Amino acid sequence: MVEDPNFPQRARPAASPAGLSFHALVPAAGRGTRYGGARPKQFRSLAGRPLLAHAVERLLAAGAASVVVALPEGELEAAERELAGDPRLRFVVGGPTRQASVGRALAASPAAAADLIAVHDGARPALAAPDLEAVVRAASAGAAVLGRPVTDTIKRVEGGRILATLDRAALFRAETPQVFRRDLLEQALLAAERDGFVGTDEAALVERLGGIEIRAVVASKPNPKVTLPEDLAEAARLLGAEEAGG
Amino acid sequence: MVEDPNFPQRARPAASPAGLSFHALVPAAGRGTRYGGARPKQFRSLAGRPLLAHAVERLLAAGAASVVVALPEGELEAAERELAGDPRLRFVVGGPTRQASVGRALAASPAAAADLIAVHDGARPALAAPDLEAVVRAASAGAAVLGRPVTDTIKRVEGGRILATLDRAALFRAETPQVFRRDLLEQALLAAERDGFVGTDEAALVERLGGIEIRAVVASKPNPKVTLPEDLAEAARLLGAEEAGG
Repeated sequence: MVEDPNFPQRARPAASPAGLSFHALVPAAGRGTRYGGARPKQFRSLAGRPLLAHAVERLLAAGAASVVVALPEGELEAAERELAGDPRLRFVVGGPTRQASVGRALAASPAAAADLIAVHDGARPALAAPDLEAVVRAASAGAAVLGRPVTDTIKRVEGGRILATLDRAALFRAETPQVFRRDLLEQALLAAERDGFVGTDEAALVERLGGIEIRAVVASKPNPKVTLPEDLAEAARLLGAEEAGG
Repeated sequence: MVEDPNFPQRARPAASPAGLSFHALVPAAGRGTRYGGARPKQFRSLAGRPLLAHAVERLLAAGAASVVVALPEGELEAAERELAGDPRLRFVVGGPTRQASVGRALAASPAAAADLIAVHDGARPALAAPDLEAVVRAASAGAAVLGRPVTDTIKRVEGGRILATLDRAALFRAETPQVFRRDLLEQALLAAERDGFVGTDEAALVERLGGIEIRAVVASKPNPKVTLPEDLAEAARLLGAEEAGG
């Protein structure tokens, strides 16, 4: 998948503002069937830029050594036109599932086996720099996930019957970035592919390996995923509050 | 707690539009410390009426035989002024916890032992009539809870470490109304009080009794709880979309 053999060399190893050392992958190959519309949702305009640009720019601004974005087939040209400009940024065609897209993006990443890779949803535009920094630092032992405590009342159900209430103190709502040592992520993707396992996030694949310490890092700022058109208004509100210092 | 002995008799036994037969309790005695402001959040204006009025009016419109609202001490006069008018509606002073408030409201409810009682959050203004109807009907066996599937990735954690991903298909996010036969709810509240158990919802108390079938009913429309000031804007949007037929 590395179509440009110069990419790793071209990368400008910009010193991170926070002294962080990490690479990034952005799975954004979904067709957004829940969202509707002609263009995929990741190119919808948010605060004057494509939705996807926000996630990518925040990763670059925090000092990512490289950012590989997986896109739907046919969207690479548009992305080059609308997002490119930073030599650390590149685009690949994603796969039919999230983890296939992560696998293709990883194959195009110049990160070394011991480097940290932050996988971050392209549809989460409001990532706060301190949150990114915290999850990258927590991953120094191998793996860490940004998320939040669960505030809802979650029940265990079977056949439409409620069996019990889960202890919220033992629950964590996973978001992204999810950060892993490259070799662990690679191993986890291969094992999932071998076993035909499809997870809802990357950590689920790494959990299956067993024996890996995955740190749960609580986010300080909201960064909801834009899934439906109305989520874009909420995202705009969050970005506006940020600018107002909120 | 029944300060007005005529209350049950005064109640206008309006035939429910859907032929439903139920009573309602609305715990709204929280001081809303997460919300801030001078007045409790349940009296904040939403679409020209107090937030609390929306939940109450929807229960009445669906044919509730009675609605007992538990309020913070000192707010009863304001509630009488701003919400009263329907003879099926009455107010009581709530307790220090949600379940204490539900207990006090239940004590003031004219419902008979075999009647169904719908407990509904005063801060959920957008209850859809078909959802209320569905959860009341599902409770005919004794108990039912309105809620939604879990779409987030939920992890089991311990000491800040992620242990596993929970199977979303076996999870249910509980909301309200939660509907119970009066005798079951009463029994559950007494058992919790005896054991010093505090739950995050009423179903958690009924689950503890064991052997009760509690049906999980999936809501058709969103009805988020207003917890923070920004939630009020989202609620206004939902009510606006309803009026526009959305």
